[in-house]
Amino acid sequence: MILDKINTPKDLKQIKTEELDVLANEVREIIIKKVNSTGGHMAPNLGILETTIALHYVFETPIDKIIYDVSHQCYTHKILTGRKDGFTNPDNYYKYTGYTAPEECEHDLFKVGHTSTSVSLACGVAKARDLKNEHYNVIAVIGDGSLSGGEALEGLNNAASFNSNFIIIVNDNDMSIAENHGGLYNNLKLLRDTNGQAENNFFKTLGFDYIYLKDGNNIEKLIETLKKVKDIDHPVIVHICTQKGNGLKVAEDNKEKFHWVMPGILDEETNTTSSEENYTSLTAKYIYEKAKEDQTVVAITAGTPGVFGFTPDFRSKLGKQYSDVGIAEEHAVAYASALAKSGAKPIFTVMSSFVQRTYDQLSQDLCLNNSPITMLVYWGGISGADATHLCTFDIPLISNIPNMVYLSPTNKEEYLAMLNWSIEQTKHPVAIRVPNIELVSTGIEDKTDYSILNKYKVEKQGEKVAILGLGNFYYLACEVAEKIKKDLGFEPTVINPRFITGIDKRLLEDLKHNHNIVITLEDGVLDGGFGEKITRFYGNSEIKVLNYGGFKEFPDRIPAEELHRRYRLTPEQILEDIRKL
Amino acid sequence: MILDKINTPKDLKQIKTEELDVLANEVREIIIKKVNSTGGHMAPNLGILETTIALHYVFETPIDKIIYDVSHQCYTHKILTGRKDGFTNPDNYYKYTGYTAPEECEHDLFKVGHTSTSVSLACGVAKARDLKNEHYNVIAVIGDGSLSGGEALEGLNNAASFNSNFIIIVNDNDMSIAENHGGLYNNLKLLRDTNGQAENNFFKTLGFDYIYLKDGNNIEKLIETLKKVKDIDHPVIVHICTQKGNGLKVAEDNKEKFHWVMPGILDEETNTTSSEENYTSLTAKYIYEKAKEDQTVVAITAGTPGVFGFTPDFRSKLGKQYSDVGIAEEHAVAYASALAKSGAKPIFTVMSSFVQRTYDQLSQDLCLNNSPITMLVYWGGISGADATHLCTFDIPLISNIPNMVYLSPTNKEEYLAMLNWSIEQTKHPVAIRVPNIELVSTGIEDKTDYSILNKYKVEKQGEKVAILGLGNFYYLACEVAEKIKKDLGFEPTVINPRFITGIDKRLLEDLKHNHNIVITLEDGVLDGGFGEKITRFYGNSEIKVLNYGGFKEFPDRIPAEELHRRYRLTPEQILEDIRKL
Repeated sequence: MILDKINTPKDLKQIKTEELDVLANEVREIIIKKVNSTGGHMAPNLGILETTIALHYVFETPIDKIIYDVSHQCYTHKILTGRKDGFTNPDNYYKYTGYTAPEECEHDLFKVGHTSTSVSLACGVAKARDLKNEHYNVIAVIGDGSLSGGEALEGLNNAASFNSNFIIIVNDNDMSIAENHGGLYNNLKLLRDTNGQAENNFFKTLGFDYIYLKDGNNIEKLIETLKKVKDIDHPVIVHICTQKGNGLKVAEDNKEKFHWVMPGILDEETNTTSSEENYTSLTAKYIYEKAKEDQTVVAITAGTPGVFGFTPDFRSKLGKQYSDVGIAEEHAVAYASALAKSGAKPIFTVMSSFVQRTYDQLSQDLCLNNSPITMLVYWGGISGADATHLCTFDIPLISNIPNMVYLSPTNKEEYLAMLNWSIEQTKHPVAIRVPNIELVSTGIEDKTDYSILNKYKVEKQGEKVAILGLGNFYYLACEVAEKIKKDLGFEPTVINPRFITGIDKRLLEDLKHNHNIVITLEDGVLDGGFGEKITRFYGNSEIKVLNYGGFKEFPDRIPAEELHRRYRLTPEQILEDIRKL
Repeated sequence: MILDKINTPKDLKQIKTEELDVLANEVREIIIKKVNSTGGHMAPNLGILETTIALHYVFETPIDKIIYDVSHQCYTHKILTGRKDGFTNPDNYYKYTGYTAPEECEHDLFKVGHTSTSVSLACGVAKARDLKNEHYNVIAVIGDGSLSGGEALEGLNNAASFNSNFIIIVNDNDMSIAENHGGLYNNLKLLRDTNGQAENNFFKTLGFDYIYLKDGNNIEKLIETLKKVKDIDHPVIVHICTQKGNGLKVAEDNKEKFHWVMPGILDEETNTTSSEENYTSLTAKYIYEKAKEDQTVVAITAGTPGVFGFTPDFRSKLGKQYSDVGIAEEHAVAYASALAKSGAKPIFTVMSSFVQRTYDQLSQDLCLNNSPITMLVYWGGISGADATHLCTFDIPLISNIPNMVYLSPTNKEEYLAMLNWSIEQTKHPVAIRVPNIELVSTGIEDKTDYSILNKYKVEKQGEKVAILGLGNFYYLACEVAEKIKKDLGFEPTVINPRFITGIDKRLLEDLKHNHNIVITLEDGVLDGGFGEKITRFYGNSEIKVLNYGGFKEFPDRIPAEELHRRYRLTPEQILEDIRKL
């Protein structure tokens, strides 16, 4: 194998250009095999494989700096920069993260996982270089899908005003995770259709020099093009057209499905989409039916429809009641707020990690205007995720904003009742933390009137110890209660708070009568979260309060079980703490 | 006066067009007089005065919807929509807010104060209209300065893809608050220079129809132009050139100075810039000197240099060590992070209210990468500000992010020591909450080693009650201590925490020995803030904790004194609470 000879980018430069295609095939096979085994970003990595080889052939990292947007397309980069063992040896398949990670390698500049940041980061790198009178190439690599994000556009605006070397590779595969949305994409299409010759050119309007390459999967042409811009003394856009999933027919034909895949994607003989109901399928079905009966219902996503079960079929059936605004979470919140203020019923679905983009929009565009939108927050909870995609900060982020009603259901019926109430009410911005656990159904319709805010539900009346189990952690509360009963011989009270954003003062006050310990459990970081508010309430009383949740940290692919132990979230540990009191 | 006849926009339509210029002069005089009396946004309102008259002459609000970006330019709109009493009668000068406010009037759609939101909001309004099969004009009014914000660009990308009426007035006065920055502004200049005829047109690349009007302060031409786009069936940009400060010579000549003015701006005979040292002047001076001795120091602002005392002279002297990235807070954080990672020393100055734009960038671009930037957060604290510009949320926003070190100094020497440490250290992202009180100087150099994190300072060792007074509220802690001594006859302990982002466990543990009450005071909302963490620490102990700070709400121009009483922040109220225990 040619790859055997390559341990650093320096080695790559010794390879004859005519052998690079062979190398590309080797890398492609390795990536396909590895990703099929572990899961991961299949299609993006196949699409940019040749570009990455060409980049390392022409430029000299780590002196030259390459900054990948999202960095989910960095597999070839990792393979060429000393980390091929993580791709060739199944024993090492989990050794490296799926994103750039400076702690792994000097060829990686930043830990990146959210979109649309590369150009802004590259601006800082280029500016530092210029201040220090250093000379090297700064290269940002950004996909067309990421261009719609505000941070990318802010970055482009400033990058264009540099008077020094600044290279931006726009990797245009005519796809976001799903299809692209927005006016910008018509211009990219025009540029593709005119071989980059159209007078009206988005990048040129910003002041960039501009080079177009149709054959973005052709290494020879890529090298030729990149050599032209190497050591350039001003900002330039290199607009290359690539094929997402290139070289793997089934991925080329199913680009969205192969964006991120589960292990074994290529081994499946039949369509194994689970027919079992879960909170995602439940929600998609609910929205679909709601939209059919009410033409003012709009499902909104910011570029990640697949996550929410918004299949191509769902999208086409919802028609104008489906809005994918592209990767543009800030816009999505303002858009939803104005829809609600104008009498429509927007449902914005978003992942906990990505809702982080929207703090100011939640505060100013939404909550200050008290617009009755429904925001569904997915994946919230402590997990073994990459540090770039943690879903543990949404409670502090969302719940400290005035006017917001943030709900945390514990089962199917509660969730549906909250959803229904939220969509039909007109008084509050409502967010619902979609349970991130297996679906639990009580079989009994929840008839709670959620317009009476901040009313917690006592699920089990007991004594001495009261356990507030929020959302996902309601079941942990039940386990702890069982354990207390068994080991300590009394029945504690179990409470399902349901409302994250408010205190049920009467209930908490009542607990003082025959309880002396209150325990809060929340599936997210403690700092700024739900439990601290309960503790504050009891600050001047005799009640002891123990708060359980995650620590303020960025754990990186630490298994959830290990984190639970670290955070003392096992029933055994909690019981131990109770005993100490 | 012609204005006497106008109580609603309907009345305006009865005015002969040739009288509109007279009306404009009347309105101009009223605005100048009022703003000179109360302070406010002088130049933006004078610039858009004629446009506003023309808008209300051509369109029919509240059926047609006008959405103003930032909405600091809405004075003429208010005068024409039934609120002229707030501008003509000095007794009513404070009756209406300086921003659009739906609670005041049906002609205002949203409460808005942050930039770059109008197009996104208009998308929601237009979409709701289309879903409901209604028919009216949706008009977003946005200034050139606001266009650089990510939310605006995200909004434009989506607005362009509408297939229905959508009018965007780009009010181009060739100014942000200060001068514009970024590639986009070269295109606006090109469009102005070519009378809108340049082939390469930023708005057209996004797919907008486009109309240019040079004479944006000419009512007749404005009406003619707006009539062309009224009831249009697709998205159109109306690019108008206006003069910021139009009709007030001194404002035309000093556009930045007259963007927002203090009362009496026109009455001053001499330059009354205070020569007294304050935290702003101190900081600007410090940065200037630091930058001179270290070429890697960069001062960064996102479009609001004046707030930080970055005068035109400062900017020109700092040269390439000064970066105004335009209104683009997200970009600014990522940019600073990358500068720091590349060995430079960035100092990003930002107002508490606007730092809200950057949560995800603080988390992902900055703290996950542990980049040693210095972020100076101004104006943090409870004040009588508009609900759109509250500065009470920065503690929950910033301090719950892992790796961040958020410092809260209480006097000049402490502040300078922190600043110096922050700029020179290379391990942590550091934010400093610049004191928002009168400058206090101890005259004694602070030699604390701030690299030892989370070490609180015991300013006065006492007993029974320990008071943690954070930042601005350190002095309140001293007052409370005095009062306790006087009224209760013992000396409480007074602590200056200095670190917002961490707990001094040893000190808090030690307090248990001879204290039974701990009080926390913070100048911001309590929810998710500093005090709750102290309370959590003591949750399982005998110590009683009382947290003082703001409530989770959006107070709108409520005087600080009133808020302090509401939040029980007077020494008397705090003493009363202590007595109860």
